[in-house]
Amino acid sequence: MKPLKIAYIGGGSKMWARVFQNDLALADGLFGEIALYDIDGDAAKRNQLIGERIEQCPNCVAQWKYQVYKEIEPALKNADFVIISILPGTFAEMQSDVHAPEKYGIWQSVGDSAGPGGVLRAMRTVPIYEMFANKIKAICPSAWVINFTNPMSICTKTLYDVFPGIKAFGCCHEVFHAQEFLCAVIHETLGIDRPSRKEIITDVSGINHFTWITKATYQDIDIFSLLPRFIDRFYEQGYSEYEDHEAWKKDYFSYGNKVKENLFLRYGVLAAAGDRHLAEFVNNKWYLGSPQEVKEWQFSLTPVSFRITQMKERIQESIELAEGRKPIVLKKSAEEAVDLIKAILGFGSVTSNVNLPNNEQMPGYPIGSIVETNCVFSLDSVKPIQANALPPAVHNLVLRNCLNIDELYEGIKARSLDRVFAAFVDQPLCSVLSLKDARTLFVEMMINTRNYLDDFFDLENWINKQ
Amino acid sequence: MKPLKIAYIGGGSKMWARVFQNDLALADGLFGEIALYDIDGDAAKRNQLIGERIEQCPNCVAQWKYQVYKEIEPALKNADFVIISILPGTFAEMQSDVHAPEKYGIWQSVGDSAGPGGVLRAMRTVPIYEMFANKIKAICPSAWVINFTNPMSICTKTLYDVFPGIKAFGCCHEVFHAQEFLCAVIHETLGIDRPSRKEIITDVSGINHFTWITKATYQDIDIFSLLPRFIDRFYEQGYSEYEDHEAWKKDYFSYGNKVKENLFLRYGVLAAAGDRHLAEFVNNKWYLGSPQEVKEWQFSLTPVSFRITQMKERIQESIELAEGRKPIVLKKSAEEAVDLIKAILGFGSVTSNVNLPNNEQMPGYPIGSIVETNCVFSLDSVKPIQANALPPAVHNLVLRNCLNIDELYEGIKARSLDRVFAAFVDQPLCSVLSLKDARTLFVEMMINTRNYLDDFFDLENWINKQ
Amino acid sequence: MKPLKIAYIGGGSKMWARVFQNDLALADGLFGEIALYDIDGDAAKRNQLIGERIEQCPNCVAQWKYQVYKEIEPALKNADFVIISILPGTFAEMQSDVHAPEKYGIWQSVGDSAGPGGVLRAMRTVPIYEMFANKIKAICPSAWVINFTNPMSICTKTLYDVFPGIKAFGCCHEVFHAQEFLCAVIHETLGIDRPSRKEIITDVSGINHFTWITKATYQDIDIFSLLPRFIDRFYEQGYSEYEDHEAWKKDYFSYGNKVKENLFLRYGVLAAAGDRHLAEFVNNKWYLGSPQEVKEWQFSLTPVSFRITQMKERIQESIELAEGRKPIVLKKSAEEAVDLIKAILGFGSVTSNVNLPNNEQMPGYPIGSIVETNCVFSLDSVKPIQANALPPAVHNLVLRNCLNIDELYEGIKARSLDRVFAAFVDQPLCSVLSLKDARTLFVEMMINTRNYLDDFFDLENWINKQ
Amino acid sequence: MKPLKIAYIGGGSKMWARVFQNDLALADGLFGEIALYDIDGDAAKRNQLIGERIEQCPNCVAQWKYQVYKEIEPALKNADFVIISILPGTFAEMQSDVHAPEKYGIWQSVGDSAGPGGVLRAMRTVPIYEMFANKIKAICPSAWVINFTNPMSICTKTLYDVFPGIKAFGCCHEVFHAQEFLCAVIHETLGIDRPSRKEIITDVSGINHFTWITKATYQDIDIFSLLPRFIDRFYEQGYSEYEDHEAWKKDYFSYGNKVKENLFLRYGVLAAAGDRHLAEFVNNKWYLGSPQEVKEWQFSLTPVSFRITQMKERIQESIELAEGRKPIVLKKSAEEAVDLIKAILGFGSVTSNVNLPNNEQMPGYPIGSIVETNCVFSLDSVKPIQANALPPAVHNLVLRNCLNIDELYEGIKARSLDRVFAAFVDQPLCSVLSLKDARTLFVEMMINTRNYLDDFFDLENWINKQ
Repeated sequence: MKPLKIAYIGGGSKMWARVFQNDLALADGLFGEIALYDIDGDAAKRNQLIGERIEQCPNCVAQWKYQVYKEIEPALKNADFVIISILPGTFAEMQSDVHAPEKYGIWQSVGDSAGPGGVLRAMRTVPIYEMFANKIKAICPSAWVINFTNPMSICTKTLYDVFPGIKAFGCCHEVFHAQEFLCAVIHETLGIDRPSRKEIITDVSGINHFTWITKATYQDIDIFSLLPRFIDRFYEQGYSEYEDHEAWKKDYFSYGNKVKENLFLRYGVLAAAGDRHLAEFVNNKWYLGSPQEVKEWQFSLTPVSFRITQMKERIQESIELAEGRKPIVLKKSAEEAVDLIKAILGFGSVTSNVNLPNNEQMPGYPIGSIVETNCVFSLDSVKPIQANALPPAVHNLVLRNCLNIDELYEGIKARSLDRVFAAFVDQPLCSVLSLKDARTLFVEMMINTRNYLDDFFDLENWINKQ
Repeated sequence: MKPLKIAYIGGGSKMWARVFQNDLALADGLFGEIALYDIDGDAAKRNQLIGERIEQCPNCVAQWKYQVYKEIEPALKNADFVIISILPGTFAEMQSDVHAPEKYGIWQSVGDSAGPGGVLRAMRTVPIYEMFANKIKAICPSAWVINFTNPMSICTKTLYDVFPGIKAFGCCHEVFHAQEFLCAVIHETLGIDRPSRKEIITDVSGINHFTWITKATYQDIDIFSLLPRFIDRFYEQGYSEYEDHEAWKKDYFSYGNKVKENLFLRYGVLAAAGDRHLAEFVNNKWYLGSPQEVKEWQFSLTPVSFRITQMKERIQESIELAEGRKPIVLKKSAEEAVDLIKAILGFGSVTSNVNLPNNEQMPGYPIGSIVETNCVFSLDSVKPIQANALPPAVHNLVLRNCLNIDELYEGIKARSLDRVFAAFVDQPLCSVLSLKDARTLFVEMMINTRNYLDDFFDLENWINKQ
Repeated sequence: MKPLKIAYIGGGSKMWARVFQNDLALADGLFGEIALYDIDGDAAKRNQLIGERIEQCPNCVAQWKYQVYKEIEPALKNADFVIISILPGTFAEMQSDVHAPEKYGIWQSVGDSAGPGGVLRAMRTVPIYEMFANKIKAICPSAWVINFTNPMSICTKTLYDVFPGIKAFGCCHEVFHAQEFLCAVIHETLGIDRPSRKEIITDVSGINHFTWITKATYQDIDIFSLLPRFIDRFYEQGYSEYEDHEAWKKDYFSYGNKVKENLFLRYGVLAAAGDRHLAEFVNNKWYLGSPQEVKEWQFSLTPVSFRITQMKERIQESIELAEGRKPIVLKKSAEEAVDLIKAILGFGSVTSNVNLPNNEQMPGYPIGSIVETNCVFSLDSVKPIQANALPPAVHNLVLRNCLNIDELYEGIKARSLDRVFAAFVDQPLCSVLSLKDARTLFVEMMINTRNYLDDFFDLENWINKQ
Repeated sequence: MKPLKIAYIGGGSKMWARVFQNDLALADGLFGEIALYDIDGDAAKRNQLIGERIEQCPNCVAQWKYQVYKEIEPALKNADFVIISILPGTFAEMQSDVHAPEKYGIWQSVGDSAGPGGVLRAMRTVPIYEMFANKIKAICPSAWVINFTNPMSICTKTLYDVFPGIKAFGCCHEVFHAQEFLCAVIHETLGIDRPSRKEIITDVSGINHFTWITKATYQDIDIFSLLPRFIDRFYEQGYSEYEDHEAWKKDYFSYGNKVKENLFLRYGVLAAAGDRHLAEFVNNKWYLGSPQEVKEWQFSLTPVSFRITQMKERIQESIELAEGRKPIVLKKSAEEAVDLIKAILGFGSVTSNVNLPNNEQMPGYPIGSIVETNCVFSLDSVKPIQANALPPAVHNLVLRNCLNIDELYEGIKARSLDRVFAAFVDQPLCSVLSLKDARTLFVEMMINTRNYLDDFFDLENWINKQ
């Protein structure tokens, strides 16, 4: 086997890079170069130093050479894999995305994939991804591209639309949480040892962050048959698949699974993402009516101020790790990206849920819309497994979002603010807005984040025309 | 040509029957029996008498024998055509349909096709139509069936689902109003004589009452190119295709076309139904935010009390006509049903917009969903003309309603209140409801109208389970 | 109305130009320039002179200025319509197309659309049409393009594939003959006056030259119900819709309709093209087993030598017309192209069968395959009418040819002789060939016509590789 | 786990039963009843005795009780699985199926799935399967049904068409041979140990016996890249994946893989069934032109007389095994049916290629046509993996057969000999027949086998009508 080159766009990442670096260090049989590229060169440099320290861990089994690139082109040159994980804009923009709509009663728990925040974030992300796709097409068209950036669907859509021959997929761990939840359900209801996530079999379909499990089994057990009993017991008090059932009361990223359970009671299938994400794909009155109601649904509105604080801590930690002041702990994460890379390299077939353009793996969805289903990975191949049909009412909820994403993408691609606004106003989270308020809010959010928009959209003109 | 038999289900109708009787009397070349069946036998009897008086008008050209039937079966026996035009339930139920949701800020202008009112009306209509379809299948399977009842889509869906071999279509005149509007636009902007509706060519697609015109031409004129100028001039003051531009200020059924124009400004295509209908297929905050806002949008909330008054007057008029105390005025209406009947009988090809199961005349919609497009009528045949694709954002609005209708139908068919409620809560007009309020309102509306529901649904059990 | 410019590519045509010039001269309301372009400049010049003489006819109502262009670009400049009607190659190539396969028992009656002749003709046509499409895209992208050249499907496919935004359709009169046949059937079986072709209503679908009528009515008569009786009477003796029922015995272009009748007896629907064309889309053993069997099926194998003779006569006639030695007779033809042009210009809606990319007007066929169905023409618009489904066995026959055409096109586009050969060997007319004979024949036919192929295909290399 | 009941229809089988009994005896974790039903009760009884002897083998790990049923109903009662493996008719009918067409130059190597033999076999099979499907629907609707009978596609189609809720799939080992072939290719070209079939990964799609592998990998090796070299070496001499490369010269069931290799050279993908089957789905002139040419293509025409001899030997062997005169050798076969059963029972996920109605696992094929693709088996679930698209030319070959099978099924279902004949005459193997010869042959073959047809078809009437 020849040495690999893995280009890491956004290689200055403070959290996900760490996970990925660890998993690569533990990937028996792999070796080569990890090419870090980031607009924040210092952060990339820190990750290089951390990577080199990881390589010195006694349990490291794969030999990687870290290299920082100042330009994206040489980073992509000869790449076998391209990892993309960036933050489009800064927390200043995210501040607007998440909090500007609150004055209209639109509360967002995440604000990165759907709702007004998701729309604005998409507007600044797509042009960047257009550039990525064009570079990949020109420089490393045969590379496999793995996207981790949100909004996931729209990033993946951009890659394929700009370069239809691309070999790309989008990876997200939200479904894993729902699978862990199902493992916990088995344990709680049957009193047997909690199986591992890979021991259960789930039928996954939908769109990223609004994915659904339509069937789940463990050995000869239909896990869904256990859910009514489980929900009876835990609905009011909350339950975490990660053991601390009170976590949602104190931690911005935790939740008690009540949203998921409520959806299951209504539709008979399991929404497979964190409740914080799920709530953003339906009418805001359902689960995000007010901060008070959000608490009743056992999750939180994550303030961007908290993300800022957290980031500072992470940078500090990176510095300490890079400088050797904090020891490296090298262990395998729960992520699957490296397993998928190995499967693509011929190390054996693996099944996982990823985001791909629909080619009838989800009949009833447009060809080319980005959908998330189980796929089989093998040498130079990722093939969707045909998904069960969603119940019609769920299908309508998912399809509405899916078409909105497509329209949003096309609007951004055409630089048409009319079309982007059409997707904005049809967001389920915007369903309480009058047309007038919707327009005012949209304008405000664009102005707040115009540093990232002015190069691409004629804001002035559109705003004046209203 | 052999004598026809036309079975008229709902043959006691007080308004539409009159129109139809007139048009039939003026249908040169036709003759035979008109079989009136109605659960209100007296009303049917009155229409028989009126029909016989029409036959004596000097300008009557078609010989019809009117016959009242007490049972539906003999009325259907040997029928060549079956006309269905009924009121499902009474105005007491409609009172609940329309006004019960108001306390939650849900205002409905019509309440018969979409929104909470449309859902409840569908619940009492589908079982009746299941019966109709079964009778037609058994008694006159080759008859052509023309539906006029609302909710149009769901009535037509029921007929085809119960009896897939049926030759049925649904007729509605709402698109005609939009075509008249376009004729007026030509006149106002170009200063030429207003053409007749049949002189313009429109590309029609969508679902009933939420139908769209994607292209409209008159001779070598693209009418859409005239609209911006027209809208500039009339947007604020209102405009009626029927000349009285102030009508919307005083008449419950009139409107100033501002909703239609607003949608055109946003999407570039023309919504082709009365504004009162259109407003019910989108988020209620758009055009139905409050009685005050409705006025700003230049239309009205029609109170059911007004319908009751109006109906009393119509019955009185029927009596006078039947008894000869009021003279008959026999003239052709603007409706097309009789023209379609003639085309089906081989009198020449006619094109009109009707409701049929989708068979790819609207690519991107489910096969079998009821859609409204132009169709060519000829001997024993109705064939859709391929529709232009709707703009994606409009497609999403239409498809959402279309899937909701399908899910509502399937829920009623399965007598599953869970599924019906899923369709209820996903109505665009319900988008301001919390889940709790939605459930409370749904229960209230079912209890209000339970006389028509108890035979089919297990209300008790479902309500208790909540 | 502004003056039109109609660019006529292949404007030196000896027969079709005459028809078209006449119909244009009689098109009330039209005027402008007819731009003739042909690689045979003399022929174009003659048509200019003839056109000018036509303009002087007393019954001429439309004012046209004829102009000959030596280059295609200025001919296309500012064109509102582009007419394309060319002969790809010469009769020398057609000699090979039609007669080379005879030594293997493959007899072709036309050899221009399907079978080995159709494949070779396509190979020299597609590159020319690629050029046309690129020129139109660059010079007159908004023009309406009407194609008359065979192979019709593949020419139209090329135009749309190279320039997806093109407004093109393909016109062919073969269906008209079948409609005339149905008119004659009415006359013969019912003893009433033969109606005109435009008085009957037919449902048309399929691919060019292998088109089908699935339903045909006249007033209240289902014409298909008359066919069994008609066939009983005329099957053995032959029948021509153009009155001379013995014509097929003496005229290379006539036929007795026995093939069409045989297909009707077997499948219940009417193949709607001349029998000479139909026979080339099915196994050659069905109707083209031997010259003797062809005669039994009441049609002829048209030798190319006859075409050469005929062409000489036509050129002579052109000269005489151009020089005024032969008088012009100006009368309307049975063709519809000019009617369609008028409809596109807004003179009123017209329905006719034309060739367009499939967009679900024929469900079950690939999107983008060229299909022939009824379409409604109106201002700047051509819209397919949804076609009845073909009976499954006919669908299989048609789809096989349709997919072969698509594969042939893709093979030529990719300049891949492997793929072209795959389409060659799968022609129904080639079904008696062993793989070895198929390859030998294909090579021979390519070498025979290499003047038109060498610029595009690497014949040498492919032949050597075998 | 509760005891299973496996109903075995055709439980008197002389060969496949043995395989299945062995594999079940070695299926750790399973136990219960095997219910044998066969119209040949003696044969079923023998298999019971053999089964009881197998149970006594020292390496038997699963406890099965064998029970013979005289009627099908009690055999099906409470069944968890239904295995169907029958011979429709006797070898007398197969004699006609295979050999009657030879006088017209139609040579068949198998004659059970396609071609004239396949059609006649289908005509006597479908009515039997209609009965099976109705019984299963009535008696054990939740059972999983595994079909092994040919014609595979049409048997599976019948089961699903009669009882759409059935949980059935069709199993065939032909693809396994092609996979073994690929394993041998690796060994021969790379000189490394031959991997096992389960170590390679293949993308499978198509229809039964005309299935294709579009991609094949082993570790990081693209096996297709090895094929040109392999074919160069073995094309002329022949190669068997089962080591005896001369076998095709002496054994009726062996082949040298030249057909498969020829198809690969022409289309770039691997036909994945025995060459004897593949040759029957394409024009007979390709590989079945004459007995001599068949030999050149390195396979054989299996005479039915040989099958008769072979069957006698097998019956003799069964008797000896049943009576204990021949020792039982209990070992695992290469078949996968029992592995699939275990997966369905929750013993872990397995991937294999099986036959199922298309639900877009093969985009471009009709929904509901029976297709063969990879599927993932797990608890109470079988889910197709999305197949790669076939190259267009191969797609056309496969789709033609697929549509023919559907039309054949619909014709038999409707008892319409016109429609069956349409499918007969369009068989690729019939492509050398004139219409007259086709009809004569079809009539002869029906008369030969009328014992199995008269109950279902009105032969007399149809034959007379011709």
